[in-house]
Amino acid sequence: MKGLIGVLGGMGPAATADLFNKFITFSNARSDQQHIPLLISSIPDIPDRTAALMQSGRSPLPEMCDYLQRLEQAGAECIVIPCNTAHFWFKELRQSCHVELLNIVEATLEEVCASGQQQIGLLATDATLYMGLYQQAIEARGLCCIRPDKPGQEQVMASIYALKAGDAARARAMMEQQAAALFARGAQLIVLGCTEVPVILAEAMQAQPTRYIESTGALVRAGIRWYEQRVGRELLLTQ
Amino acid sequence: MKGLIGVLGGMGPAATADLFNKFITFSNARSDQQHIPLLISSIPDIPDRTAALMQSGRSPLPEMCDYLQRLEQAGAECIVIPCNTAHFWFKELRQSCHVELLNIVEATLEEVCASGQQQIGLLATDATLYMGLYQQAIEARGLCCIRPDKPGQEQVMASIYALKAGDAARARAMMEQQAAALFARGAQLIVLGCTEVPVILAEAMQAQPTRYIESTGALVRAGIRWYEQRVGRELLLTQ
Repeated sequence: MKGLIGVLGGMGPAATADLFNKFITFSNARSDQQHIPLLISSIPDIPDRTAALMQSGRSPLPEMCDYLQRLEQAGAECIVIPCNTAHFWFKELRQSCHVELLNIVEATLEEVCASGQQQIGLLATDATLYMGLYQQAIEARGLCCIRPDKPGQEQVMASIYALKAGDAARARAMMEQQAAALFARGAQLIVLGCTEVPVILAEAMQAQPTRYIESTGALVRAGIRWYEQRVGRELLLTQ
Repeated sequence: MKGLIGVLGGMGPAATADLFNKFITFSNARSDQQHIPLLISSIPDIPDRTAALMQSGRSPLPEMCDYLQRLEQAGAECIVIPCNTAHFWFKELRQSCHVELLNIVEATLEEVCASGQQQIGLLATDATLYMGLYQQAIEARGLCCIRPDKPGQEQVMASIYALKAGDAARARAMMEQQAAALFARGAQLIVLGCTEVPVILAEAMQAQPTRYIESTGALVRAGIRWYEQRVGRELLLTQ
């Protein structure tokens, strides 16, 4: 089927499932056959990205390249990676395959700029912060980036690992507290720069959708626009 | 990664996403790396299964075989198909690949027998009923199968197509009415013999989990048991 989008997922599986659900609900498909064709790799033995960057853990790159190539060989024409931290290796991943790779940070920043807000909160993993992925992109556009303080960031990480370990309620309580702290410090909106965070904050986002820009949703919208161009048909719901 | 399970999905995408979510939540995984490795094909241009069987539509078998073989080539060691109606072609699909295929009807019937109930309601597509997939299996075990009457079955089909077209609220109202009618006629539990139905009846099932046996969940539990045997590790949550 023309326009097959490959998903290099499993980092973690819950974030990959969230992306899959959003591809379904953000598309204005009226029958099975109108939905966007996806091939989703959720093979989770990829070494932990944060541990690789922050604690000299084993690099996830060999497994990521392996699964990326399987997607390409199976017919994917474009690849999305629902893991922000994995984007540290974006250049190497792009070089290891022959199809288009959409960048989650670029997709998210486009939506940040379109919002017109100036004070941008940021919830992301230690490794994503350490790489400066979002801070640099936000500040390069003349906007102000507000991050959690040190104890707050420890709570963010504990929340993310709680979700990965299946404790969604604990994850949610910790993350909601950190989001509230960023708003109290003047954030006009918060970028959810880790694909686990929209899963954790799903209810808060539903209650106040304009206060959050989440990287998974931005990547899905970019994927749907890529597909529309590829097949010459409009599908993306205007929300 | 050892034990890769391939998912021949896209029939429809919402049912495939439901299966993916259940693989995540039914597993007692404590980190990304402990989750079950999945490769999910959600390529939805497979011709409509019900239309093929009931209205002499084009057969879905060529596309199903194509996508099945892509999963096998990409390393899947076992395949699950989250679509009951597609199991009409189960024998041909099994012959077209070299890896194990788990059967959704067998997985569901195992759970029906374990329940000890005698009066079994059935919600499924016209085509699944026409094939007699579940009725024959239920009656062969000496149990009584209660199906919707003709106008009721028309509502079941309208509900399933409403979900496929994105109208979840309308789908739910219609399906809940048909479930209530089966209980009123003496059903002690209802088999959800179509993978769209657990998506539609998610809230009703959560409220009264022992009154429903759903084919997607049964298939996921069979898949997790297959994986546990393959890798020699216990993962399935006892619920």
